[in-house]
Amino acid sequence: MITRLVPTAIAHRIVVHGSTIYLAGVVPDDRSQPIRGQLRQCLEKIDTLLKTVGSDASSLLQVLIYVTDLDCYEEFNAEWKDFFDASALPARAMVAVKDLGPGTLVELVATAALPQSGS
Amino acid sequence: MITRLVPTAIAHRIVVHGSTIYLAGVVPDDRSQPIRGQLRQCLEKIDTLLKTVGSDASSLLQVLIYVTDLDCYEEFNAEWKDFFDASALPARAMVAVKDLGPGTLVELVATAALPQSGS
Amino acid sequence: MITRLVPTAIAHRIVVHGSTIYLAGVVPDDRSQPIRGQLRQCLEKIDTLLKTVGSDASSLLQVLIYVTDLDCYEEFNAEWKDFFDASALPARAMVAVKDLGPGTLVELVATAALPQSGS
Repeated sequence: MITRLVPTAIAHRIVVHGSTIYLAGVVPDDRSQPIRGQLRQCLEKIDTLLKTVGSDASSLLQVLIYVTDLDCYEEFNAEWKDFFDASALPARAMVAVKDLGPGTLVELVATAALPQSGS
Repeated sequence: MITRLVPTAIAHRIVVHGSTIYLAGVVPDDRSQPIRGQLRQCLEKIDTLLKTVGSDASSLLQVLIYVTDLDCYEEFNAEWKDFFDASALPARAMVAVKDLGPGTLVELVATAALPQSGS
Repeated sequence: MITRLVPTAIAHRIVVHGSTIYLAGVVPDDRSQPIRGQLRQCLEKIDTLLKTVGSDASSLLQVLIYVTDLDCYEEFNAEWKDFFDASALPARAMVAVKDLGPGTLVELVATAALPQSGS
């Protein structure tokens, strides 16, 4: 069964299939911030989205990270490590792409796990 | 169990594991068309591929959208919304990359669900 | 249940959920090599990672391939076909991105299947 939640005009932000949660790409709302602030916004948005289905960012499985410039790497990782408990760090991959939209420095595409009922 | 279907020289276009369907990246055949036509071709190819395993585009879970230019955003979304029933819109993420090959404006990488037997 | 293995400072290289294995992005260690050597390193790293959970590269489901230049296509595919048994070729998608880091020509993001116990 597929459960789709948080609809927009072009997507559902959350799609649940079995015990796997697929999220739409998440970008920051305030794009005037530097990379750390933009990343923090993305991670908090993901956490909030996942909480609507009883999960949270500690259940992330894999995160595709798209940035516009790899020069942000150290700053990015500082914020990333600050956000996650080390034991809950997901698999991740970071690549620099051509364009994410005006002012957007980072976009995250996440897959997460639904907590098992009864666990 | 893994079921691999529609082999090419370098991949299988469909790989099924449990009730999840992983598709190879889909690009348009006629690359002379503008973005709407290219996207329509991609979506129809995905639908056709999914139908070979008893699913279809209404069971898409997550779609990674690679384009060469975000300027196509409005045109892209017009075609996207025309294709999907609003209730079946998948999670999606769109990023602009450097190159998708000569003339190719869009590539879609999709994950979908296999209908449950008996449902 | 989520099992996270092979931790780094910023991720786990392997995250297992149900019978699905999510890997972190894999890049070559020796970035002085041309595309074939870099790809071979990536594929061997993936195979080694998957073997730590009782799987291997023949159980790959989907591979996202990020390269810095599509001109490598023929060389890339020659190495790719040399590595895989034709019957085990995963679904794959290749796009050229802006930057993968100094000297890095290819990064692979893989999803694989855990062999079923008893099978």
